[in-house]
Amino acid sequence: MKSMAQAAGVRDGALLTDLYQLTMLQAYWARGMHETAVFEFFVRALPPGRSFLVAAGLEQVLDYLESLRFSDEELAWLAGCGRFDRTFVDWLATLRFTGEVDAMDEGTPFFADEPILRVVAPLPQAQLVETRIINLLQFQTLVASKAARCVLAAPGKLLVDFGLRRAHGAEAGLLSARASYLAGFGGTATVLAGMKWDIPLFGTMAHSFIQAHDDEVDAFEHFARTHPRANTMLIDTYDTEAAAQALVPLATRLKREGIAIQAVRLDSGDLAEHARRVRAILDAGDLASVKIFASGNLDEYALRALIAAGAPIDGFGVGTRMNTSADRPYLDCAYKLQEYAGEPRRKRSEGKATWPGRKQVYRRRDMAGRFAGDVLTNMDAPAEGEPLLHPVMRVGRRLAPSPALTAVRERASAQLAALPERLQALEAPAPYPVDVAESLLALARAVDAREAVRRVHADSRRPEP
Amino acid sequence: MKSMAQAAGVRDGALLTDLYQLTMLQAYWARGMHETAVFEFFVRALPPGRSFLVAAGLEQVLDYLESLRFSDEELAWLAGCGRFDRTFVDWLATLRFTGEVDAMDEGTPFFADEPILRVVAPLPQAQLVETRIINLLQFQTLVASKAARCVLAAPGKLLVDFGLRRAHGAEAGLLSARASYLAGFGGTATVLAGMKWDIPLFGTMAHSFIQAHDDEVDAFEHFARTHPRANTMLIDTYDTEAAAQALVPLATRLKREGIAIQAVRLDSGDLAEHARRVRAILDAGDLASVKIFASGNLDEYALRALIAAGAPIDGFGVGTRMNTSADRPYLDCAYKLQEYAGEPRRKRSEGKATWPGRKQVYRRRDMAGRFAGDVLTNMDAPAEGEPLLHPVMRVGRRLAPSPALTAVRERASAQLAALPERLQALEAPAPYPVDVAESLLALARAVDAREAVRRVHADSRRPEP
Repeated sequence: MKSMAQAAGVRDGALLTDLYQLTMLQAYWARGMHETAVFEFFVRALPPGRSFLVAAGLEQVLDYLESLRFSDEELAWLAGCGRFDRTFVDWLATLRFTGEVDAMDEGTPFFADEPILRVVAPLPQAQLVETRIINLLQFQTLVASKAARCVLAAPGKLLVDFGLRRAHGAEAGLLSARASYLAGFGGTATVLAGMKWDIPLFGTMAHSFIQAHDDEVDAFEHFARTHPRANTMLIDTYDTEAAAQALVPLATRLKREGIAIQAVRLDSGDLAEHARRVRAILDAGDLASVKIFASGNLDEYALRALIAAGAPIDGFGVGTRMNTSADRPYLDCAYKLQEYAGEPRRKRSEGKATWPGRKQVYRRRDMAGRFAGDVLTNMDAPAEGEPLLHPVMRVGRRLAPSPALTAVRERASAQLAALPERLQALEAPAPYPVDVAESLLALARAVDAREAVRRVHADSRRPEP
Repeated sequence: MKSMAQAAGVRDGALLTDLYQLTMLQAYWARGMHETAVFEFFVRALPPGRSFLVAAGLEQVLDYLESLRFSDEELAWLAGCGRFDRTFVDWLATLRFTGEVDAMDEGTPFFADEPILRVVAPLPQAQLVETRIINLLQFQTLVASKAARCVLAAPGKLLVDFGLRRAHGAEAGLLSARASYLAGFGGTATVLAGMKWDIPLFGTMAHSFIQAHDDEVDAFEHFARTHPRANTMLIDTYDTEAAAQALVPLATRLKREGIAIQAVRLDSGDLAEHARRVRAILDAGDLASVKIFASGNLDEYALRALIAAGAPIDGFGVGTRMNTSADRPYLDCAYKLQEYAGEPRRKRSEGKATWPGRKQVYRRRDMAGRFAGDVLTNMDAPAEGEPLLHPVMRVGRRLAPSPALTAVRERASAQLAALPERLQALEAPAPYPVDVAESLLALARAVDAREAVRRVHADSRRPEP
């Protein structure tokens, strides 16, 4: 069976990784360092202005892990590139992911330092997959989080992903359609995303369609006759209000033939002002059923402003700024070794220290069912509340079939609704409380102390140069 | 033969497009609107703080156009989705790109309103390819432009693309390796980009490699013995200067066995300060040949600051901020209809008006060979200087084999060197001069006048509702 990522048009090459993964693997292989490693993926700090993130991308990670293998072409290239032993490359040919994954469900809001995915596997396997796991989780999480803000800023409005063209390449376009739908968008314009994931598709027409006709109204009529049940007329090519005026007699005429103009799209100028004028023109022409759709440089802030202005707009095409998470186009995230060969490990680099060991996040709810606070703790020191990381893969295989994307989307919607009210605003006045359990603080101290002792011993053992 | 994009692991699906392309195509097909259309891709305005852009992505566009076809799976889905006529879908099965492309060479600096690519083809073909053409050109141009700024900020330094993990998906990671190399980076860490395009590969080691060993120096030695000819030691996992101190006796000992430690990497803290201290430690230990490599949140501004501070750093790993063009993660770009059925066309939407007709860009040089100014003009009204758009595809096939990426890179380097000196600074005091030829202004006026006349005629012909 093709993996979902392959079906989405993207090949999950095992060489889609950083060179250092392979050079480290050769060292591990050379010394037989195959003991169990534990890595966790987390975000070090929320981007400025974001008060929560939405976990997304797990499905593609599981696809990747289940299908991970080096192709013959890749192996031949590795053997010939002059960096690797032939016997190491032969060993790579047999490499499969046989480990475990625990993760938060897609659509779960999460916060800084909380792992959303844990990999437990022989060290070489767990290391090799670092690059692609980060690549998949950071991007979909980034977009789902941005899209969730748009959804919260425009309650009850239809939001449609319009951003394939300015997404960063093919996979970004596809996966941002998925991530934004998961977060509450109503659909996408990206056809392949509709085909692959059954995401509802929406489309209007381009300015070129109007321009290719000698007359704007002829273009409208031509399109409506070709698509009598699904048509949205783009009315800003020359003069928005004039086009709306001209649409009234056309729509009236077509109605007699059973063809209904369904919507108009505004794509430039002052969208709120145009929407008011166009709404008045349509209503005066007995076209109250024709909806108004708007697009053009939209993001959560523009949506909030349009809604606050009472603009009579029924739906929005949200593109570039959502698909690229334009104000915060990356997350300060990491996939870090937390344990090797049974011993908790910790990095102490300046500004980048990590919490050691296998961790769990417990989330409490208040009486109203809203999220009240989280505790980050060791896996073996449970806290009050619901544990957020669940087993999803064992021995390299999913424990259960993937949930339908619509089910993930419904769950995400309920999760967003359970956020504290202050976090649902675009600027949260106070952050969500995440406590670090005393047991985890103690473990970090113990690991630091062990390292210090080890360092002294190592220094005393080391031969003179 | 596989297209380059397919070889790079990305499938150029014909359904990787917006729904409206297909609904417009059905309307064109229904009315037999197959006359020749001319579309041009251009950037409406340079992003704030950018004084030039670097054209990139043409190769992938040509791959896409040469291989464009709907797969059986896609056709079956289209036929069953309820939006399209069966006979239209049958016609789509035969659709190929048979048109012409003229374009600027990759690596050419360009400015607002200058077309970098023109497509001339029957209207349905030229329309269908809009989404993917924008998707490919905007992203590589965005990254090449950002990478060029890094190169200009760090003359003579080795810059390596480290950004796959936080690029927006697989294709973004691959294509940003290509775009940054084209713009002057020395190589990438992305193995697949090395395999596909012969881009030089660089790698160091991860913190997890150090952590997986009980002792840091043991980790260094283990890696150096496994990779005696290519090794860079990551020294910031616990204490940067202590690790550098510990490296001296190890390197001295290994040298006796013919194993040379080649470099160290700094990845956290004050990079300039750490580099100075580490350089002193290495030099005092007779390790002047060990180079210092730095990474961590770098972009053109950070590079400029480190170089201005005289930091003794030999090379830089530049990741996330370059691969995502983090300060400007998208371009205000468009692919617009300029002519249909022999008549120039023009969009007049507020703030988004376009120049009509087939255009050419002429670039003058000063006595020193530097770019002195451009003229944007009609194709049939030549101006002084070098024309920048060249024929690259006819009848749907490349006119010449693709140039080697190294040749593109060398040419790009010469082009950057020919920019006016003020544009080579990160903040240009004055923009590059681009004049619009009088003939083009006249054509725009003529198109507007024709549209006005046509509108009056159309209004008078239109039946009453």
